Amino acid sequence: MATYTAPVDDIGFLLTRVFDFDATMAGLPGFEEVNAELAVSVLEEAGKFAAGVLEPLNRPGDEEGCTLENGLVTTPKGVADAYRAFADAGWCSLSGNPEYGGQGLPRVLQILLDEMLSSANLSFGLFPGLTRGAVEAIGHHASAELKATYLPKMISGEWTGAMALTEASAGTDLGLLNTRAVPNGDGSYAITGTKIFISSGDQDFGGNVIHLVLARLPDAPKGVKGISLFLAPKFLVHADGSLGARNGVNVGALEHKMGIHAQPTCVMNYDGATGWLVGEPGRGLNAMFTMMNAERLFVGIQGLGIAEAANQKAVAYARERLQGHGADGTPGPVAIINHPDVRKMLLTGRAFADAARALAVWTALQMDIADRHPDATVRREADALVALLTPVVKAAFTDFGFETAVASQQVLGGHGYIREWGMEQFVRDARIAQIYEGTNGVQALDLVGRKLGLEGGKLPQRFFDLIKADLDAALPSAGAALVTPVAEALARLQGATARLAANGGAVEAGAAATDYLRLFALVALGWMWVRMAAAATDEAATPVAQRKAVLARFFVERMLPQTLGLDAALAHGAPSLMALHADAF
Amino acid sequence: MATYTAPVDDIGFLLTRVFDFDATMAGLPGFEEVNAELAVSVLEEAGKFAAGVLEPLNRPGDEEGCTLENGLVTTPKGVADAYRAFADAGWCSLSGNPEYGGQGLPRVLQILLDEMLSSANLSFGLFPGLTRGAVEAIGHHASAELKATYLPKMISGEWTGAMALTEASAGTDLGLLNTRAVPNGDGSYAITGTKIFISSGDQDFGGNVIHLVLARLPDAPKGVKGISLFLAPKFLVHADGSLGARNGVNVGALEHKMGIHAQPTCVMNYDGATGWLVGEPGRGLNAMFTMMNAERLFVGIQGLGIAEAANQKAVAYARERLQGHGADGTPGPVAIINHPDVRKMLLTGRAFADAARALAVWTALQMDIADRHPDATVRREADALVALLTPVVKAAFTDFGFETAVASQQVLGGHGYIREWGMEQFVRDARIAQIYEGTNGVQALDLVGRKLGLEGGKLPQRFFDLIKADLDAALPSAGAALVTPVAEALARLQGATARLAANGGAVEAGAAATDYLRLFALVALGWMWVRMAAAATDEAATPVAQRKAVLARFFVERMLPQTLGLDAALAHGAPSLMALHADAF
Repeated sequence: MATYTAPVDDIGFLLTRVFDFDATMAGLPGFEEVNAELAVSVLEEAGKFAAGVLEPLNRPGDEEGCTLENGLVTTPKGVADAYRAFADAGWCSLSGNPEYGGQGLPRVLQILLDEMLSSANLSFGLFPGLTRGAVEAIGHHASAELKATYLPKMISGEWTGAMALTEASAGTDLGLLNTRAVPNGDGSYAITGTKIFISSGDQDFGGNVIHLVLARLPDAPKGVKGISLFLAPKFLVHADGSLGARNGVNVGALEHKMGIHAQPTCVMNYDGATGWLVGEPGRGLNAMFTMMNAERLFVGIQGLGIAEAANQKAVAYARERLQGHGADGTPGPVAIINHPDVRKMLLTGRAFADAARALAVWTALQMDIADRHPDATVRREADALVALLTPVVKAAFTDFGFETAVASQQVLGGHGYIREWGMEQFVRDARIAQIYEGTNGVQALDLVGRKLGLEGGKLPQRFFDLIKADLDAALPSAGAALVTPVAEALARLQGATARLAANGGAVEAGAAATDYLRLFALVALGWMWVRMAAAATDEAATPVAQRKAVLARFFVERMLPQTLGLDAALAHGAPSLMALHADAF
Repeated sequence: MATYTAPVDDIGFLLTRVFDFDATMAGLPGFEEVNAELAVSVLEEAGKFAAGVLEPLNRPGDEEGCTLENGLVTTPKGVADAYRAFADAGWCSLSGNPEYGGQGLPRVLQILLDEMLSSANLSFGLFPGLTRGAVEAIGHHASAELKATYLPKMISGEWTGAMALTEASAGTDLGLLNTRAVPNGDGSYAITGTKIFISSGDQDFGGNVIHLVLARLPDAPKGVKGISLFLAPKFLVHADGSLGARNGVNVGALEHKMGIHAQPTCVMNYDGATGWLVGEPGRGLNAMFTMMNAERLFVGIQGLGIAEAANQKAVAYARERLQGHGADGTPGPVAIINHPDVRKMLLTGRAFADAARALAVWTALQMDIADRHPDATVRREADALVALLTPVVKAAFTDFGFETAVASQQVLGGHGYIREWGMEQFVRDARIAQIYEGTNGVQALDLVGRKLGLEGGKLPQRFFDLIKADLDAALPSAGAALVTPVAEALARLQGATARLAANGGAVEAGAAATDYLRLFALVALGWMWVRMAAAATDEAATPVAQRKAVLARFFVERMLPQTLGLDAALAHGAPSLMALHADAF
């Protein structure tokens, strides 16, 4: 069966036809030399690496899994070599800060690379992904000395990173954590505690593993205000940058998981580990959120990446598998891709993936603008839009991504349930992305409880106005049959937003959160379909553009109507959720 | 963490308050002695067996899995003993024909027992379930001699059964199968071929394994009309009923699956196996469908069973897990069952499971009426309703059941992804029920392509009239706030049904199938909620009844609105699904 092909044509369409990537880059100091042609050629190479090196390790890695012996983690056969080749080829440093040896390329390229890694081998992609998150936190909050010591080797990929937040009784509510950090008197701290669910907690690639650990200083207040962030490396580092003695950073166990078996998710014991404060005491959560926000977008992209790969495999199977006669009367057996209900499963996944990629590119463009634009107001406005979209991308992309993996598995019938075909691994691997880096429920609460209130509550309307302007602009080329339903769905979202603002209160917000986020996401994906359809009419001759026109119609006709039900459900509010006593469930 | 408790209180409520079980049984010859009190006491014992013996084997069985050595299957530790205890206690023969040693109890009891088996240990439940399917086919189609030889020991559970349909290139489309049966000249046949995905294809419980095998006679026509059904036992049987020589029925391999690891799903090689024709030559598919229809209802119940168990575990966790402050301002940490979005996940699963159990009982009552009622017209009408509901129960219960398993896993956050907690097993095990015994897509096609056309196309309206009459009757007690939305959803379903009838054609039917089935199921579940709410107002004092009133409101307000989106999506029909060329996906 066909394996993964990176969606380079689609990326080219997005960067040249849907978004004016070149013009945006031209306005951002430091990115003047970046353009779509460069981006596509870089990503074409990334796609070859993902498909040629990482994808072949995905199934074997799932079967073999990671092992822990005498405190040493072993990743599956081939993973360590692939990681070294990946770092040597420069893929770890793609968007890294040039001050520390990074290539300084835009976020847009980074998220498209991240998608390919997630498609080819999610377990693998977490190593560079978590390292990058740690780099963000260190880059924003650590001292110049820590940055100089750690960033160059983390950006190059010589060393990897991990983020250590969760404890057995402190997950979503990090205020409950117990890990302690006691000053050693020399500026360093002794960190003691046990963390669980630590992705990339260790590896067998060589180099160092840099842990960012949330812990409490002595006499710190209870709750989140008592939490500080520390950097604790697996190996202490000499002044010349070479590795010194082992630090008290030990893998206690590997978690037994549903999926991502090639990823060593660790129980970590910090046994008086030497660490250094990152950022101010008591501001650890703030520093960690720098890392978490970047990670949340990456996790959303993981949902997209698995959806893309699963859909590709399901399409390949559906073209080859012969069963039944055609619904149009063609004598059988015909390829099952001709059956309407098989098409519906495949189109649903494809209509998600293409629009999600477009929305991811749009969001990454806002991140690049927020980082680099010369005008501070433009930067601030872009940054707020990223903040608004972050929980939507994380939760909706991973929910739709999981649904796509399940539907793609379904296309294979019984073979979808058999490990050798690889589809059930997509389902098991995709499932984690709905849970980690803040469950999707937490994302929804972040959206309704925090993000809707930004800019004094005016941010959502600014975003909706932006969509409305795009819809109006697209009307002549995309046509009313596409644009009007999206405008109506937008009106539903605006109505639901107004009701939330009027009803206020955390109970109503919590009761609305997940349905509201899905409504928001469907509107945002519909917006992207209108933009893609409008761009596609210019060049009806290309295969990508022809496909876009059909998919836009499918999305608007068969998926967007979900917004009707979500709106009606939201209108009923919280009472029916809160009436039952906890003992009566 | 709390383990499974069989929902005996809920069953009592259904049999005494919602359905007049006693009166229905009183009118069915042979069931006059059966009443709700008896049923509840039998099911209470079944629940103890499921929770006490089968549930403790579920997680270890998943870890250990089945093995095949030298052609012999070994099930996980404890399974064989549990099976013998289960059969010795008489649970295999509960609804079996008394003519062959069965206890002759109603289907209603059988499906409620099936639910408990599926909750406690799905892999285990498939052994008696598949045996019962084989018993149905033999009972309806085999010769008196075959019946006398095989049925008593299959009904008692001494021997088990398997159904061998699928081949590597013949799944949904059985017309493509290649297995051959050549007459031996003595009334028996030599069967040769390879089947895949054969649940309960072998076991290590002792006794015999009776395979029902689809195969082609020499010179049989191509396609489904050339298929006949054969009985081929693992051991040939002497005239006195004792086991003779091994037959050419061999396990070639065990499938490597996503879940149900304690169930030996086999690749079976029939190497000139001696078999006997069941039913007429060329009518094998017809005979097999007797087995399949019973199995399809059982598979639907599996979705319910896993949903029930997963929801129970998630509720128990949510009551104990402390995170965050209360949305109403209660200082934290509070039990997460107080958070609105956690409640929403739990209530969604519960609102499905309770209504699904009610609909399953209603359907099983129709089966009992179809089997036993003295009036042939009543029997025929009940049988048609069962035919209509079979694909709905199979597909919708397994889809909602899977969704419930996923949502219940989500309640546990990161712990949900860790094997030790058992939630991810529910997801992996539940997944198969959407695929086997005809994928859920095939069920939807059966509903729109075949079942809607029964009784000259008048069957759906007869069913809708029945719902309408119940809604009208419930209005005074259940109230308009509950009844009107269900009546409106019914009107949507009737509209969608009329559009399908008017537009005709297999393409439109195929493009509508899955959305239509979900719309149908939501209306049927809403109907059950109205009936339960109406019954609950009579006795507002009991905990079960209080819970029903809240759940009915939750279902109508927060789940039933999905029907709006499904109706709107269906109205767009097939064009957007069929426009893309197969090469352009």
